Amino acid sequence: MSITKRSKILIVGTGAVGGFYGGKLAEAGQDVSTLCRSDYEIVKSEGIKVKSCSGDFAYRPAQVVKYISDYRGCPDYVIVTLKSLPNIDVSELIGPAVAPSTSIVLIQNGIGIETVIRDNFPDNELVSGLAFICVSRIKAGEIHHQEYGRLVLGLYPNGASENVELLVELFINSGVHCTISHDVIRERWKKLLWNASFNTISVLTGADTKSILDNKYTAELVLKIMKEVQTVATVSGHDIESSVLQKYIDDTRKMKPYRTSMLLDYEAGKKMEIEAILGNTIAIAQKYSTQVTNLKCLYGLLMLINNNLNP
Amino acid sequence: MSITKRSKILIVGTGAVGGFYGGKLAEAGQDVSTLCRSDYEIVKSEGIKVKSCSGDFAYRPAQVVKYISDYRGCPDYVIVTLKSLPNIDVSELIGPAVAPSTSIVLIQNGIGIETVIRDNFPDNELVSGLAFICVSRIKAGEIHHQEYGRLVLGLYPNGASENVELLVELFINSGVHCTISHDVIRERWKKLLWNASFNTISVLTGADTKSILDNKYTAELVLKIMKEVQTVATVSGHDIESSVLQKYIDDTRKMKPYRTSMLLDYEAGKKMEIEAILGNTIAIAQKYSTQVTNLKCLYGLLMLINNNLNP
Repeated sequence: MSITKRSKILIVGTGAVGGFYGGKLAEAGQDVSTLCRSDYEIVKSEGIKVKSCSGDFAYRPAQVVKYISDYRGCPDYVIVTLKSLPNIDVSELIGPAVAPSTSIVLIQNGIGIETVIRDNFPDNELVSGLAFICVSRIKAGEIHHQEYGRLVLGLYPNGASENVELLVELFINSGVHCTISHDVIRERWKKLLWNASFNTISVLTGADTKSILDNKYTAELVLKIMKEVQTVATVSGHDIESSVLQKYIDDTRKMKPYRTSMLLDYEAGKKMEIEAILGNTIAIAQKYSTQVTNLKCLYGLLMLINNNLNP
Repeated sequence: MSITKRSKILIVGTGAVGGFYGGKLAEAGQDVSTLCRSDYEIVKSEGIKVKSCSGDFAYRPAQVVKYISDYRGCPDYVIVTLKSLPNIDVSELIGPAVAPSTSIVLIQNGIGIETVIRDNFPDNELVSGLAFICVSRIKAGEIHHQEYGRLVLGLYPNGASENVELLVELFINSGVHCTISHDVIRERWKKLLWNASFNTISVLTGADTKSILDNKYTAELVLKIMKEVQTVATVSGHDIESSVLQKYIDDTRKMKPYRTSMLLDYEAGKKMEIEAILGNTIAIAQKYSTQVTNLKCLYGLLMLINNNLNP
């Protein structure tokens, strides 16, 4: 496939992930606009600066809007890179910008996050995606991309389409390692193996990935949590081979000691994605009468912590 | 039984619990000496001051010793009120003061803490005890008794004896609510219901008892943990009726919001009694092939936290 025209892309949630990937697409010549809330003023006047391990860059979005209704035009892709939090109504937020031809792309954590969007936009193409990246917002309009950057995209609930293939090509042409998955929900489950174990344990113990794996008790707990997630994935139709679990643990051992994004959120007093990562998994487990005792234990502890944080 | 002579009592571990109960016995005329380590100088020169909800008092121990070998005489009772920590060798600590006629009394938290003392002092009478008290050390030589104060004592592993009955009488005569139990291990399991749930959750979430019970997820978790402890108690021969669990939860609901002693230890950077409370319970569960998934989950998390604290 060859790219014959610039795609119109609207990034909703211009934090670290949205700012980075939007920037890559803009750098490669696409028509990228951003919905910014807290950082609107600075992004409007100065654009976005990205300090990146693969080369620093800066860009000015085609449009910077504070309210979705201010966006002018008909986007080919609305890419949602918001955190998956219960109090953020994504449908309401993107609604005014979604045209019949718009593909809605969710690059977010968690499982089961697509269903509400599917229900609210039944006639739009829905693309689900996962970002494997270490990136953080330093301050308003400034992003630090530390490591990795791979994207996986797929049509929801499975398969692919011309629009998905085009978007993958746009990312590849932007220098982003991007692949297509015909079972993107399975990819979500695989990412969840890591998030449900390392993210949660890191918040409850304050420890980085190295400390978690160097302690035999938490190393065992990581594997038990992953096995519960694997079981729920499997009973709900998305088989994960057991070798994947050990590979993720081995790969994590090889990483530099890493303080998870959920731990950083927690330490900054920000709400954590407990529902999207644990709550939805537990709900699916209950549907299939599957025991997830460890997930429920962690969920209980983290729900109390989360509720005591500010909105 | 009437008390015809003063009993010689040596308190080992003169923190909040030891300082308080030793003081009650001293006030009532018993010959109470104390082994003090960190607070030796001040207790030697100024004695111990107790600010108590049932009336303030102060006392000077008969002997204040820094090293057990400095103790002169043959104690009727060596009362151990140390925290139950793996790095504290109680046998080595009390050895030089234990005469053939000495009763060793363990007023400590946890389960299975008597076995090592039984093995090391096979010919001494061993008394096991539990303190239900809110008391804390304010500073060297000063103790604050906030609430409660009940003691349960029993011969280990079960039954009673003249010495146990005498000690109970000494406490009662000192104004302490003290009862005898012919199955003191069962009392240990009952206290463990509370410690294994509220202490652990409080450390992992930073929450007080009210917050834990007001949140439906952690309230459910409390009950699940208690049920696991109840099961281990039952399979190991110490039946606990299910009504006890709900009673403990109801009683805790009625208490003022309480930050557990384990949470205070954690916040002060002090090692927590994870082995005595969770580790030993898990070991007994394994002996009886009993599943304790929640206890193991909490154990893993708390062992990592504990290992990162200073000794």
